[in-house]
Amino acid sequence: MSDSAAKPRARDLGIPLQGRTGKHNAITDVRGVAVGHETIITGEGKLEVGIGPIRTGVTAILPRAEHSDPVFAAWSCLNGNGEMTGTTWVDESGFLSGPIMITNTHSVGVVHDSIIEWSQRTRNLKVGNPWSLPVVAETYDGFLNDINGFHVRRNHVLKALNKASGGPVEEGNTGGGTGMICHKFKGGIGTSSRTLHLADSDYVVGALVQANYGLREQLTISGVPVGLEIPDLMPEENGQTPRDSEQGSIIVVIATDAPLLPHQLRRLAKRAPLGIARVGGIGGNGSGDIFVSFSTANQNAMSDNELKTVTMLPNELMTDLFQATVLVVEEAILNALVAAKTMTGIDGNTVYAIPHERLREVLRKYNRLC
Amino acid sequence: MSDSAAKPRARDLGIPLQGRTGKHNAITDVRGVAVGHETIITGEGKLEVGIGPIRTGVTAILPRAEHSDPVFAAWSCLNGNGEMTGTTWVDESGFLSGPIMITNTHSVGVVHDSIIEWSQRTRNLKVGNPWSLPVVAETYDGFLNDINGFHVRRNHVLKALNKASGGPVEEGNTGGGTGMICHKFKGGIGTSSRTLHLADSDYVVGALVQANYGLREQLTISGVPVGLEIPDLMPEENGQTPRDSEQGSIIVVIATDAPLLPHQLRRLAKRAPLGIARVGGIGGNGSGDIFVSFSTANQNAMSDNELKTVTMLPNELMTDLFQATVLVVEEAILNALVAAKTMTGIDGNTVYAIPHERLREVLRKYNRLC
Amino acid sequence: MSDSAAKPRARDLGIPLQGRTGKHNAITDVRGVAVGHETIITGEGKLEVGIGPIRTGVTAILPRAEHSDPVFAAWSCLNGNGEMTGTTWVDESGFLSGPIMITNTHSVGVVHDSIIEWSQRTRNLKVGNPWSLPVVAETYDGFLNDINGFHVRRNHVLKALNKASGGPVEEGNTGGGTGMICHKFKGGIGTSSRTLHLADSDYVVGALVQANYGLREQLTISGVPVGLEIPDLMPEENGQTPRDSEQGSIIVVIATDAPLLPHQLRRLAKRAPLGIARVGGIGGNGSGDIFVSFSTANQNAMSDNELKTVTMLPNELMTDLFQATVLVVEEAILNALVAAKTMTGIDGNTVYAIPHERLREVLRKYNRLC
Amino acid sequence: MSDSAAKPRARDLGIPLQGRTGKHNAITDVRGVAVGHETIITGEGKLEVGIGPIRTGVTAILPRAEHSDPVFAAWSCLNGNGEMTGTTWVDESGFLSGPIMITNTHSVGVVHDSIIEWSQRTRNLKVGNPWSLPVVAETYDGFLNDINGFHVRRNHVLKALNKASGGPVEEGNTGGGTGMICHKFKGGIGTSSRTLHLADSDYVVGALVQANYGLREQLTISGVPVGLEIPDLMPEENGQTPRDSEQGSIIVVIATDAPLLPHQLRRLAKRAPLGIARVGGIGGNGSGDIFVSFSTANQNAMSDNELKTVTMLPNELMTDLFQATVLVVEEAILNALVAAKTMTGIDGNTVYAIPHERLREVLRKYNRLC
Repeated sequence: MSDSAAKPRARDLGIPLQGRTGKHNAITDVRGVAVGHETIITGEGKLEVGIGPIRTGVTAILPRAEHSDPVFAAWSCLNGNGEMTGTTWVDESGFLSGPIMITNTHSVGVVHDSIIEWSQRTRNLKVGNPWSLPVVAETYDGFLNDINGFHVRRNHVLKALNKASGGPVEEGNTGGGTGMICHKFKGGIGTSSRTLHLADSDYVVGALVQANYGLREQLTISGVPVGLEIPDLMPEENGQTPRDSEQGSIIVVIATDAPLLPHQLRRLAKRAPLGIARVGGIGGNGSGDIFVSFSTANQNAMSDNELKTVTMLPNELMTDLFQATVLVVEEAILNALVAAKTMTGIDGNTVYAIPHERLREVLRKYNRLC
Repeated sequence: MSDSAAKPRARDLGIPLQGRTGKHNAITDVRGVAVGHETIITGEGKLEVGIGPIRTGVTAILPRAEHSDPVFAAWSCLNGNGEMTGTTWVDESGFLSGPIMITNTHSVGVVHDSIIEWSQRTRNLKVGNPWSLPVVAETYDGFLNDINGFHVRRNHVLKALNKASGGPVEEGNTGGGTGMICHKFKGGIGTSSRTLHLADSDYVVGALVQANYGLREQLTISGVPVGLEIPDLMPEENGQTPRDSEQGSIIVVIATDAPLLPHQLRRLAKRAPLGIARVGGIGGNGSGDIFVSFSTANQNAMSDNELKTVTMLPNELMTDLFQATVLVVEEAILNALVAAKTMTGIDGNTVYAIPHERLREVLRKYNRLC
Repeated sequence: MSDSAAKPRARDLGIPLQGRTGKHNAITDVRGVAVGHETIITGEGKLEVGIGPIRTGVTAILPRAEHSDPVFAAWSCLNGNGEMTGTTWVDESGFLSGPIMITNTHSVGVVHDSIIEWSQRTRNLKVGNPWSLPVVAETYDGFLNDINGFHVRRNHVLKALNKASGGPVEEGNTGGGTGMICHKFKGGIGTSSRTLHLADSDYVVGALVQANYGLREQLTISGVPVGLEIPDLMPEENGQTPRDSEQGSIIVVIATDAPLLPHQLRRLAKRAPLGIARVGGIGGNGSGDIFVSFSTANQNAMSDNELKTVTMLPNELMTDLFQATVLVVEEAILNALVAAKTMTGIDGNTVYAIPHERLREVLRKYNRLC
Repeated sequence: MSDSAAKPRARDLGIPLQGRTGKHNAITDVRGVAVGHETIITGEGKLEVGIGPIRTGVTAILPRAEHSDPVFAAWSCLNGNGEMTGTTWVDESGFLSGPIMITNTHSVGVVHDSIIEWSQRTRNLKVGNPWSLPVVAETYDGFLNDINGFHVRRNHVLKALNKASGGPVEEGNTGGGTGMICHKFKGGIGTSSRTLHLADSDYVVGALVQANYGLREQLTISGVPVGLEIPDLMPEENGQTPRDSEQGSIIVVIATDAPLLPHQLRRLAKRAPLGIARVGGIGGNGSGDIFVSFSTANQNAMSDNELKTVTMLPNELMTDLFQATVLVVEEAILNALVAAKTMTGIDGNTVYAIPHERLREVLRKYNRLC
């Protein structure tokens, strides 16, 4: 984190954002959640498929860092031009039994099988079935990365899993988010959290996004039409600006320690689009906007043979969780944008970081700078 | 029940059926579940819309007879050419807050509003919202009944609700099932139950169906091609056999006292088609095959403001519940067929009861008579 | 429309809104779509259930004003604390066969049965089934209206259907929207449209909303935190401000003449939440946020017995339709807010209109006034 | 096919089955559909993870053998304890853009990435996106196969794809079905087809299954309780019969040349469970019962930029397609059972083929032998 410590975050720039964040303003503020990134950056210049340049990686989110105890989980989708494996069993069983990993579109398979191998060898799975149905999601980094070179390998997956920890989470050009583009600025990984008080207890809602979606003109920050105000600094391909179409996606992981049952977690996942909408996203046809949510409450809820007692937050109190979910998704995207740095990849293609000072000027113009 | 007591049931005829039934072999074997029918039969001869003849009714299923405490619930659908109101909130909240009522297709509205009135005036709703979103389902009885005469009225709904009780359930031409047709024999209401032992406890699964679907040639009873063996006794319209198309539907209500969460109850509801398939149904285009399931366990699970502790059966033990669900849906349909009696309705249209002795002969031919 | 002609709309106040509207900036800009309202306002003072005061109504949207030819359609839901009947068959068949009607929560049934009666008697239904499965949606007006008095009657439904026409659409306190509340200001009916050019043709996307959702602090207009800037003028109950909880909902009807197949129309319906999010909505637990979409292209697509040739817009061109859908939903809500006038209903309960001049001041403060 | 030509099929044994089959009674009777298997069988004796014994493989189904032109498609699920990748985009877009491949549970990833590589290098993808979202499904063969040895490799995938052809399809212990178990007899790949006449045209419906599900006692063949009549010949593990639990699944691929739109193809996929139910399946908790359907009609329906004219079969004529779908799924499972041969795998574990003569005797006992 030494390097990332230097990266500013959305609030550091004076962007007005609502609500009380957790300690790290990260998904890891949900106790037990661990995040690990493995970033692969090598080579420069002309694309040679299988050689590089490489601008990719893989990110692991472990719901209960050190335990294989499954969590209640659910998923949802805004626009399905993407992949998240393992969702059918999450939906059926209400449980997520392993890590969530995010990578590039053409590395889903290797990450999938590597998780199985890791699960079979290193995890002491006491309940459930002898097989694994991993959750792996992706977004497309082929503008910057030699995506058809299939550079993510088994060892990268294991490294990301092994590095996973709590505490601050590196953002921007890191892990699965390394080569991503968001509203035609450089995107990638972002995270945020909110704390809230419900039914006499304190809870946390956190999100981690791999943000790779959106057109420039749509970009809205705290209600300000930033994309219209900064129409330049567009991605460059052979020194030209390519057609402004959406070839991206956004994966959102939502975590909470509030005791939600699977059908309630689906409700959280369905709020992710509202956070995306606040930044201007519309779920374009080319976008794979897929969301997974889980709760770290209700430990040891899975069993092979005995009744389990679990705790449920009343539906009537979920509105505050919905609001928090919308806000952490919004802020996680902004954090990804703010942390990401200008990157040049295959064939010299370049994607620019959002310019921090100009962003502040635009916020000031609309009387929204904190 | 005095009259219905005389009606035979599928097992009485020697149809081989698997599993151990509850006391009444009825949905009411799930303790607390109450069923009430209101049957409306008047007039004969030529159809005069608004006058009759009338062959219809309404059936009420109350999950917790005397209490307004909501139950965990879910729904599913095989072919959606039908209506079940209230499912959107069942799906979202995981709760069913009132009765389930079944009537004819063109009386859904009056039953809907009458339940609201009854709920607002007679139930002491302590939690949730000030509005009601009733669950009302239907099948089409327009071959025998003056369906566009809108003969189900508010008072019929209240009577069905007020008559609801535990114990034996009347089957065949009764309540919402009065004018229904099943595999081109007379159909209607049927019910069945199974008991099973899981995780050191005894549980019951029960189903109630309003059976109004299916072509004759498809009819299969305990694996025997009964429909092919009894191709006559087809419905008569003006003394002719109308085109053998499916204009029916089947509504299935599944109840259990096993402690299932909403996402697990959805799994039960999704097994209803398997029971229908065992009788030969395929969910034809004209069919509205809609299923709702609920669990009477976990009393007082709904709250406005406090955490609730609920009990969950492990997924790993659900297979036996799935098997029981398939079997009770199958047997409930057979009970509807066996209990129903030949009926003549509008314009002298006639639908015949399945002939019991011939059915036994066919079973004997295939070595399946018990 | 004489009175409503005097009502300003969002753009009249200088709210900056993107995109090119159709002639009337209304759902009726989609050729053939007709809208009719029946408004019921009588009585003042103390609530007497069954007497009044009455502040309610019903709105009809006919996809092909004068024809019973079904349209391709789909639906979606953000938060399901509400009702929209008929969706199961829309989902299964891909067709919507009659009008869409919107009323209060406790009048869904009477509207449902009245549509059936109207369909059976006045429409010449040549294809499909002999039964009707109407689409009726609702939001809750019990803060201002004697909702348990069940004041919507058969004749109101017929009047709304018979009055339905193209051209300008009355907004605010009218039809089903009469007694509705939006972000704790007076809400109701709103509409908007966009025109766009795709694949060498001009298309229109229109939305009509019955807006009854949202907390004050969430209200955002063109990115400006209006709800935080105008925290007063809250609803009054017995001269007090009631708890700021959400007991509302929003129904959205989306129409287009772009040739979309049913699975593509579902994609449009799933964008409604993004428009709601732009105004600050989050789909609170008490909200029934249900959306239906249809296309007036592909006339005569339904048949009983012959292959049909239909036209399909490529998925690749749908992104612009998504953007338009988001914008018309947003603007329809704003139009509902701007058109609605302060209303006093049962027990003197009062809901205030958003104050136009103060709204303009707030927009000016954030440099967003046009 | 020389060897498989010797394998009998269900009809050869005198099992009574309804309907008129296509020329090969196979999914390949749908013109253009090609199937290729790659089978991997090596080693005997004690399991050494990574070495063997190996009893696995991979099967490819190409909707349009020689063309990359996408087909309309849909999917459905009975019990989701399994994986089928790529479904999110199938559901969203209505299109399936490549092959469907089926393998063992722990080889989904390698097959996934290998399809991408094959698609990127060998297919001339003219429309859509630069990325691939392959459809890969699985069932679990860990009772016979060294599943954690990850023995399916890139070259096996390419071989299955390259071998794909029309004509007869090998069944039983072949391709992805090599190590599978069905109702505790040896299972694997099976296929069947039906021809039907609708709207003045002839159409074909075909299914291919990878059958790996079911308990013995449930097994029903043409209504006859075969599983109860042949309770012996159970799988052997260390010379013992393991617990009779379900650790299997069934993948069903449904193909037709009837011109169905995506929402209509979903209706076909939803009928797969009815065919499974006819053989006694109930979708046990451990089962991954996932179904995909596609139509080879409507060539060149996908476009980047222009309207397309497509043909639609009326919903009213779909009932016969539903019936055909149920029958081909049932018969494909029976063909898998009948073709499969006794297999011994890891640690000497053995699964027996269903004994053909005893099966005929049982059918005769129930007067069902043709």
